[in-house]
Amino acid sequence: MDRRSFMKTAGLAAGSAAAVSGIAAPAIAQGAMELKMVTTWPKNLPGLGVGAQRLADRIGTLTEGRITVKVFAAGELVPPFESFDAVSTGTADLYHAADYYFQGKHKALNFFTTVPMGLTAAELNAWINYMGGQDLWDELSGQFNIKAFQVGNTGAQMGGWFKNELKSLEDLKGLNFRMPGLGGEVLRRLGVNVQSLPGGEIFTALQSGAIDGTDWVGPWSDLAFGFYKILKNYYYPSMFEPGAAISLGVNRGVWDKLSDSDKELFRVVSMAENNQMYSDFKANDGQALETLVSEHGVKLHEFPEDILMALGKTSDEVVAEVGQEDALSKKIYESFLSARKLTGRSSSTTEKAFLIARDRVLAG
Amino acid sequence: MDRRSFMKTAGLAAGSAAAVSGIAAPAIAQGAMELKMVTTWPKNLPGLGVGAQRLADRIGTLTEGRITVKVFAAGELVPPFESFDAVSTGTADLYHAADYYFQGKHKALNFFTTVPMGLTAAELNAWINYMGGQDLWDELSGQFNIKAFQVGNTGAQMGGWFKNELKSLEDLKGLNFRMPGLGGEVLRRLGVNVQSLPGGEIFTALQSGAIDGTDWVGPWSDLAFGFYKILKNYYYPSMFEPGAAISLGVNRGVWDKLSDSDKELFRVVSMAENNQMYSDFKANDGQALETLVSEHGVKLHEFPEDILMALGKTSDEVVAEVGQEDALSKKIYESFLSARKLTGRSSSTTEKAFLIARDRVLAG
Repeated sequence: MDRRSFMKTAGLAAGSAAAVSGIAAPAIAQGAMELKMVTTWPKNLPGLGVGAQRLADRIGTLTEGRITVKVFAAGELVPPFESFDAVSTGTADLYHAADYYFQGKHKALNFFTTVPMGLTAAELNAWINYMGGQDLWDELSGQFNIKAFQVGNTGAQMGGWFKNELKSLEDLKGLNFRMPGLGGEVLRRLGVNVQSLPGGEIFTALQSGAIDGTDWVGPWSDLAFGFYKILKNYYYPSMFEPGAAISLGVNRGVWDKLSDSDKELFRVVSMAENNQMYSDFKANDGQALETLVSEHGVKLHEFPEDILMALGKTSDEVVAEVGQEDALSKKIYESFLSARKLTGRSSSTTEKAFLIARDRVLAG
Repeated sequence: MDRRSFMKTAGLAAGSAAAVSGIAAPAIAQGAMELKMVTTWPKNLPGLGVGAQRLADRIGTLTEGRITVKVFAAGELVPPFESFDAVSTGTADLYHAADYYFQGKHKALNFFTTVPMGLTAAELNAWINYMGGQDLWDELSGQFNIKAFQVGNTGAQMGGWFKNELKSLEDLKGLNFRMPGLGGEVLRRLGVNVQSLPGGEIFTALQSGAIDGTDWVGPWSDLAFGFYKILKNYYYPSMFEPGAAISLGVNRGVWDKLSDSDKELFRVVSMAENNQMYSDFKANDGQALETLVSEHGVKLHEFPEDILMALGKTSDEVVAEVGQEDALSKKIYESFLSARKLTGRSSSTTEKAFLIARDRVLAG
């Protein structure tokens, strides 16, 4: 996914976004605190926008209205691209977004959403909570006057939609395919003619034949976009987004003013949201996949072996380059690699091996 | 794992547990509420006991001391086996346990911890939160005057420790192996001489040769028990515990007295714990697996194909029988099967396929 997609989907262009409404310190009256949360999603977009609103509502409920959070849809207060800057400078108090949308600020932010050949949601949580990830994120975000938390995950995504079946790596060459970010860079190196259209323009581009295929998120989100009406070949897995985390960014000035118990409240509400949003995606992806296959004639394919290997190897090259940008990037990359090695071996002998065996038994 | 294990490990026998201290309604003085939480773990046992204490502390912190939770280790207030009854009758206000420990009360409680051939942590969360699982759990627990929440997960577990390598299904016949619960019933049907020793007795039984092997939890917990000193063959995956959930049980009378915002606080703190405990296991399992293999010469093996298939098929038979015990069991079982089908297909094309591909690339 990319942030512009959601904005365009909602019919909001960056240019039409409301003007920045000046520096807004948190309003404090009679012990109350009113916080402004900018987001990169349309209001109440299933999964992501719903999660932002739930997070805001919970802070209100658990403080019995002492702290209220007003949610602004993408483009409503600032253009979504500028959410990070808005919180950094204090124009807004909070953002609800995916940190890799702000990689223009620092490429290492990618590690705190997801990177190609990266971590599953469970592995990412382990790294952030218990293997040094949060400290590194604090160091990076701190440079921008922001304190960030995980507040959700899409789970591992699908690989994308293709007009024709893919037989081998050769079939990628010259393909017109929509894929933003680091994944787009990987595909470019493999000969794909990469485009990074916003979500709202994908369907039209597919209809006109301007592109031959597209990535998006997973079954739930992809079903809503209707790609199955044009393309029937749905490939898996995504080698680029194995578990995309959603972030809450808090202006450091606001954070420093919170009492210890309110800081703990922000931590706890964020962790709860991290758990709940992933389960929302997992439940709805399951139902949507069934609908796509049973009702819309979509064919599921695993990428051919040579494509998977090429995607994986090139992904590791691209991510390694991100990890060499500066001293902090290097430290983050090395910590990420260590977490991937350790949690990955555990995932291989537990979740992975179980899922393989369960499928074999059920197919039995 | 089984509950007696933790108790014995801590040197507490059920017989030596403190006598039940009479009916204790929550103490309410000057707006304060003091709740008693019984647990099935030793005080601050890594992962599980630490999670119980963190949950209690957070309720205290987020209510700024208005609601305090005093944690009792296994056997301290009531014998761990009796935690469910204690909360049901109001002797205690809360329990922190695994619901399958109480399957003597109702066998369908197994579904809300884990069952053989069941759901991963992510799938279980999807079922509980968004596919009808919580309502069914409320109906079942409600019969016992209890409201229950998920407050953690061990993640998918390992298959166990064996003296000799397993070549085929024949090698299971006559083996003396420690495995409690539904998994034990599966192994019994496959010819294993099943024993269900408490955790604290396993090591001695292995030393004396009384048993040839044992299951336990996963690398982190198993390393602590030192099984590697006697057995070197460590098998995966566990077909019996693909994601064991930890439960908070709340006495219904206590629950009904909570304000709406305090009810939301219990929900949110529970969800946060569900996320955090799983990440604690995932991080530590990764490190422990590395230690077992690199420092202690442990050999990792996947179960041979015919064993995996037999374990899986027999598991499905045993679980189906649990699902026929009464009308509610049947409703729960059918909902579980639907969730497994839908979330399972999504897991297969996302997390599973990604983990397989990532391992291939990294091995390549």
